[in-house]
Amino acid sequence: MQATIIAVGTELLLGEVVNSNAAWLSVQLAQLGVDVYHHATVGDNPARIGVVVDEAISRFSQTEHSGLGVLLLSGGLGPTPDDLTVQTLADHFQTPMMLDTESEAVIKAMFIARGQPMAPSNIKQALRPVDAQVLPNPLGTAPGIIWSVNQKKTITGHTVPPLIIITFPGVPSELKAMWPKASQYLQDKLLTSGQKPQVLVSRTLHFFGIGESMLASQLNDVMTSDGPVTVAPYVGRAQVRLRLATKSPSQQAAKALLDNVESIINQRVGNFMIGNDDVPPELFLPHTVGQLLTQKGLAVAVAESCTGGLISSRLTDVAGSSAYVRLNVVTYSNKAKIQLLNVAPDLLTQHGAVSQPVAIAMAQGVASLARGDGYTVGLSITGIAGPDGGTVDKPVGTAYIALSGLTPEPIVHEVLVSPKNPRTEMKFWFSQYALFYLLQYLRTYSH
Amino acid sequence: MQATIIAVGTELLLGEVVNSNAAWLSVQLAQLGVDVYHHATVGDNPARIGVVVDEAISRFSQTEHSGLGVLLLSGGLGPTPDDLTVQTLADHFQTPMMLDTESEAVIKAMFIARGQPMAPSNIKQALRPVDAQVLPNPLGTAPGIIWSVNQKKTITGHTVPPLIIITFPGVPSELKAMWPKASQYLQDKLLTSGQKPQVLVSRTLHFFGIGESMLASQLNDVMTSDGPVTVAPYVGRAQVRLRLATKSPSQQAAKALLDNVESIINQRVGNFMIGNDDVPPELFLPHTVGQLLTQKGLAVAVAESCTGGLISSRLTDVAGSSAYVRLNVVTYSNKAKIQLLNVAPDLLTQHGAVSQPVAIAMAQGVASLARGDGYTVGLSITGIAGPDGGTVDKPVGTAYIALSGLTPEPIVHEVLVSPKNPRTEMKFWFSQYALFYLLQYLRTYSH
Repeated sequence: MQATIIAVGTELLLGEVVNSNAAWLSVQLAQLGVDVYHHATVGDNPARIGVVVDEAISRFSQTEHSGLGVLLLSGGLGPTPDDLTVQTLADHFQTPMMLDTESEAVIKAMFIARGQPMAPSNIKQALRPVDAQVLPNPLGTAPGIIWSVNQKKTITGHTVPPLIIITFPGVPSELKAMWPKASQYLQDKLLTSGQKPQVLVSRTLHFFGIGESMLASQLNDVMTSDGPVTVAPYVGRAQVRLRLATKSPSQQAAKALLDNVESIINQRVGNFMIGNDDVPPELFLPHTVGQLLTQKGLAVAVAESCTGGLISSRLTDVAGSSAYVRLNVVTYSNKAKIQLLNVAPDLLTQHGAVSQPVAIAMAQGVASLARGDGYTVGLSITGIAGPDGGTVDKPVGTAYIALSGLTPEPIVHEVLVSPKNPRTEMKFWFSQYALFYLLQYLRTYSH
Repeated sequence: MQATIIAVGTELLLGEVVNSNAAWLSVQLAQLGVDVYHHATVGDNPARIGVVVDEAISRFSQTEHSGLGVLLLSGGLGPTPDDLTVQTLADHFQTPMMLDTESEAVIKAMFIARGQPMAPSNIKQALRPVDAQVLPNPLGTAPGIIWSVNQKKTITGHTVPPLIIITFPGVPSELKAMWPKASQYLQDKLLTSGQKPQVLVSRTLHFFGIGESMLASQLNDVMTSDGPVTVAPYVGRAQVRLRLATKSPSQQAAKALLDNVESIINQRVGNFMIGNDDVPPELFLPHTVGQLLTQKGLAVAVAESCTGGLISSRLTDVAGSSAYVRLNVVTYSNKAKIQLLNVAPDLLTQHGAVSQPVAIAMAQGVASLARGDGYTVGLSITGIAGPDGGTVDKPVGTAYIALSGLTPEPIVHEVLVSPKNPRTEMKFWFSQYALFYLLQYLRTYSH
């Protein structure tokens, strides 16, 4: 089985939107053992969509790997006149459309739940080729279709080889929510077609506090080994990733191979590992921190300045975080630091708001504010996120992170992030450092 | 002049890397007035690269807009055996390769500067088709080529129409550093070919609180007009966008056309408009709210429960937000709501933490906590982000948002977000609603 992914949308060709759907779908298909040889992007134009579909079909027929072709399309399922994907496909394969009454009911119910009137144009979204089935969209009004097409004549005169067409909306969260049903359909087809899939299984380990080249030098033998598991490094957003991948007839056998390599890596650089594949990348640190807090029966209270609430928000991205997050504060102004966290005004005058002593006082202050609500670790950060506010001594990108509660004296870290980062990236780096130091603190000390 | 962008790299087809180069190049080409009708991605495989090149050439010949075709390729210029782009192109157009001695010298000098020995494989990067010119790479060892091909016979037997081929490495920073020379070459070609460049100028308006179809029905005449400005809707992350675009001989003329259409849209649905193109999408609400607070000389204080700090963090994503953000709190536990915000315990017992009265008490509580630090609007949210914690009366996705300070009595909104959203998306929707209602409050009332 091989697939081509076609993204439909003029906004992609204008560069206004980056086509992240193709990459996401490719990862899912690889996990099923489906080969992806092509991605294509085309505008909201029926003739050009038709050409791209024909090209994909022609490549399926030519290719060295025969078997079923799968055409995944994203985008162009909306209610407006330039949303043309399904109608274009129906026309191309000379198949009439019909109203899917179930889809119609779902769409109507969605508008009722939102308390909004339904525009007449939304009915269009309930249309499907007569012999296609609906792929429901749990998050929006644009359902997709799953359509098994073959032996039909296209409008351009070709006879269609065995082909499955699946459509998704362009909104990534909707596409992702619709994938499980599409995936199940493809897995069933793989089984019934008797193709023994070789499963590609991969796992990504995430690191912080260690650079790509240092990681590579510590793991040189693992990364250049001729064994069944390939290990490759990538630089991600404020973290480095190692991708472990292997092909195997079964998930189980692949998992054992990956486990083995992961344990070697863990022995060498486990201290910098902040998570593995089971949660989205940006949840790694909050997730791992949350597990440790739960294990140790601790809560955390955060006092933020330069991150403005981001650390708190990331901690609470984890389901069940209310078990260890009760109270956090964002004290941007000096007045708030004094009133709420009991920071001594003298410290602010003598050392400035961005300083080690103030960070320490903030961590102690927020822990004591939360006292009585479980045993609480205090975490604070004060720094300069920019673009203004830097000085020669403390340039933009400087921050102090303090931790208290598990050590006789609070621990404070100085951090310097490249001032070239835009403000939101700077805040993200700061939050990564704060959560990483919190993780180290929880790994090292106990109550 | 029209272009196709081809990305070469198996890592793209495996979904390990998102193809951001295609979007970036598309924006640059649109600014030159070059139409981009297709993006394609193909693996490191000569036969498949050849097929994709042939498809692009065939589309150039078929298209309604005749003229010069431009083929931009990214990726596959490295030193390893799977880097095949230039050799494949030379073979495809039956042209011998030669060593470019200038490129060779540059690559050697780069290794000397790095204090590293040059691997013999790097010499490969200095090869180019005999009649191509080198596109220098100021940041790395992989130069590109600029190659004007026509009337040649391809290996597949086609005669090549007028065609420019430009290659770039896949590393985005290198591609961007090489673009100015490539752009100059294309501009010169546009001038000498006598094609008057038409600049494509676009602008995106962002909306919240109004659906795509409702927006379309309010603006039907504008969106279906045959005028010089096209208006198309897109659904983004918890917002709807309208893209205005026009082609014109000058930036100035285009801007006037767009201004005119924007003012019509503003009259009809301006109440739901949360920003335009100048800041990244997720900054729209924080940015617009920040402008209004500054104009009106107000500050805001936020008390968050279910959003866990996200509203505060988004408000502080805007540079200069310390002028109107001084103090925010995240009160996840009831105890924190009582102690810090002075919420009456009776309210929590009688109505529950997720209720209108508690939202009101939280907004009033945080405003009074911030009092004395400038005149402060209180904003609060309490809700159920899920996946657990929902009840029949108050399902996951329910939230109450209260505003106080500018009205005799606080105003409270009930919000219901689809419970199918994952937790982080739910939090984002909640934060969009909170910032949107804050914006409406600031637009409607003054101190």
